Amino acid sequence: MGLDTGRLARYRSIGREAARPGVINLNPIQRGGILTPEARRILAEFGDGYSICDFCLKGRIDEIRRPPVADFLEDLASFLGMDVVRLVNRCRDAIFITLMALRRSRGGDALVVDGNAHYSTFLAAEAAGLEVLEAPSTGHPEYRIRPEAYREVIEKAEDEGKAILAVLLTHADPHYGNLNDPRPLADLCRKHDLPLILNAAYTAGVMPLKGRELGVDVLVSSGHKSWASSGPVGILALRSELADEVLARSNRFPNKELYLLGCPVLGVALATLMASFPHVVERVARWPEEVRRARWLVGQLERIEGVRQLGVKPKEHTLICLETPGFHEVAKRHKRRGFFLYEELKARGIMGIQPGLTRRVKLNTYGLTDEEVQRVAGAFQDIAVKYGLSVS
Amino acid sequence: MGLDTGRLARYRSIGREAARPGVINLNPIQRGGILTPEARRILAEFGDGYSICDFCLKGRIDEIRRPPVADFLEDLASFLGMDVVRLVNRCRDAIFITLMALRRSRGGDALVVDGNAHYSTFLAAEAAGLEVLEAPSTGHPEYRIRPEAYREVIEKAEDEGKAILAVLLTHADPHYGNLNDPRPLADLCRKHDLPLILNAAYTAGVMPLKGRELGVDVLVSSGHKSWASSGPVGILALRSELADEVLARSNRFPNKELYLLGCPVLGVALATLMASFPHVVERVARWPEEVRRARWLVGQLERIEGVRQLGVKPKEHTLICLETPGFHEVAKRHKRRGFFLYEELKARGIMGIQPGLTRRVKLNTYGLTDEEVQRVAGAFQDIAVKYGLSVS
Repeated sequence: MGLDTGRLARYRSIGREAARPGVINLNPIQRGGILTPEARRILAEFGDGYSICDFCLKGRIDEIRRPPVADFLEDLASFLGMDVVRLVNRCRDAIFITLMALRRSRGGDALVVDGNAHYSTFLAAEAAGLEVLEAPSTGHPEYRIRPEAYREVIEKAEDEGKAILAVLLTHADPHYGNLNDPRPLADLCRKHDLPLILNAAYTAGVMPLKGRELGVDVLVSSGHKSWASSGPVGILALRSELADEVLARSNRFPNKELYLLGCPVLGVALATLMASFPHVVERVARWPEEVRRARWLVGQLERIEGVRQLGVKPKEHTLICLETPGFHEVAKRHKRRGFFLYEELKARGIMGIQPGLTRRVKLNTYGLTDEEVQRVAGAFQDIAVKYGLSVS
Repeated sequence: MGLDTGRLARYRSIGREAARPGVINLNPIQRGGILTPEARRILAEFGDGYSICDFCLKGRIDEIRRPPVADFLEDLASFLGMDVVRLVNRCRDAIFITLMALRRSRGGDALVVDGNAHYSTFLAAEAAGLEVLEAPSTGHPEYRIRPEAYREVIEKAEDEGKAILAVLLTHADPHYGNLNDPRPLADLCRKHDLPLILNAAYTAGVMPLKGRELGVDVLVSSGHKSWASSGPVGILALRSELADEVLARSNRFPNKELYLLGCPVLGVALATLMASFPHVVERVARWPEEVRRARWLVGQLERIEGVRQLGVKPKEHTLICLETPGFHEVAKRHKRRGFFLYEELKARGIMGIQPGLTRRVKLNTYGLTDEEVQRVAGAFQDIAVKYGLSVS
């Protein structure tokens, strides 16, 4: 079969450098997903795919009582200040499911999103057959999202006779880590009678968040991004007013939720999400400290020649995007080109910067200690000095 | 927040009886998904959600070279006798993605399926906006699927002017474990110019299977069901003729596959699928032994008063469905009602029978040793005798 033993043996021995003890991983998508000790402890026991399903009596994973999945989903809804929670495969699936269901029940041509939305938001809308209308950011260097931009897009679309299905706001965006207050937009949505979807992939699970108080109708998040879960797992949290509509049942199998295609998440993804939940409930209270650390690091890195934080200042989130023209100049003359920065950091026990990129650097300080953030600052400054960049 | 410490503590301490050493788990959906030692070994290292993504250079998990994901997908395609493989969240998502993509490119109203199809096949079609046309089985006791039944459904639909989008066959069905030869149906599909989707959730990964030789256009399977992977993970394997159509790109993000909504599977689900793959390649060669063991157990269980194997005889698959009217009579007068059988088996170290059901019993012998199958036979016979049922 062309699958010789030597070739196959490689799959038996895959390993991971970034998981080694002492390595600081700055990957912006990874910080909030790193497992808790409690989650890591149950990996082996729940490693088998159907490990949660031993005592499934009704063919609905959300109703399982041993382990307490049904209670957990209720607690999760309460924690998020929402009414009903379902787990789905990814945050983007939660968006897609919402759009497919709303589109079937209401009709509609378009989804209004912010210009900083994650690519998967655009894909979910496109796959659901919707046009995407963008409320643009203010552009370089702040990339701020203004409720006013949404108002203009919504009014223009309505003038043109387009049927807007829903409005989506990226709570903290993946490019600049700008945090957006949903409340002014929620007021606007109420006025236009449009449901508001909040993409909380980078916020729920790391910072305090009560969807109902923010005027949100649908809140989606990502377990492997911000809930210390193995994933892939998405969280779909609904206000009761919308729950029956989004969780439409199958005609043929009325016990099954149609757009979820039945039970979506199981095994390790769900078990680790549950095991980490008590820790997550505690950790969101420490968000101000996390932001303080991010701001401190920005201050240290901006001491390096040319470095400038992009996005709104001061930081209100731990995801940081920096312009780094000095490092980019170094890369042009370095024999490893753009990879030099990645490799210099790795030599100092720091990983997670996108290999090859030096024009902009993205990182996330979430969950790092003061000492670790100091090590990161020192490493960047050290590399700057090594390559002749000034540090003030 | 109403989430007191006592309530939260429960999530920290979830555990699993069926994972205890020595317990035989007969759950029909679980046998093929139990992790290999190789997969179990890497759980901790790849437990974090984005553990595979450390060296992602292009935003496409299927193109990652460290660990060797890209090579793995090629090997997987070759192993399945197909051309292109993508991993998706579940087998049902692979069906749904195929239907959504084909429907956009070709139009079409209906999917033709066998009457033994899994409920998720019906949901995938319904969610994709398709009518489901069923080729019925022959009914009790064989529930056999005949190509002739498909022919009648297809011809009738064409007469009525319905546009059939595709035809789906459940390779081994989840109710009776009947194994269906796709070749006669593939001939029929070619004649009607219809793509054939094979749902190999219960076959690929446990028995030898070459899609191209069977005339299959799309082969879907389930990593957590039959590939010793944690999952959830679905396998979408395509013939090159259909690959571009099913893996349609996003207009807005041409690097991303639209109906996959970008990268679907990551972390433990993918890492365990890879780590178990060398074992899976070996184990499919032992399928005849697996079938022999299943047949032996059927023979032993049919010695019990009233027990009769449903589905085609002799077994060609390890998923077994039995009519057990004797046990059902016992349940009627037992103080634990239908739960007595589950509890009696559990007391003998055997789990995985649906708690509460005694009219029919479903189980799967896949991967059990001769000694374990003997223990299962002995336990059922022992319980029968205890409750006054005769054993011949």
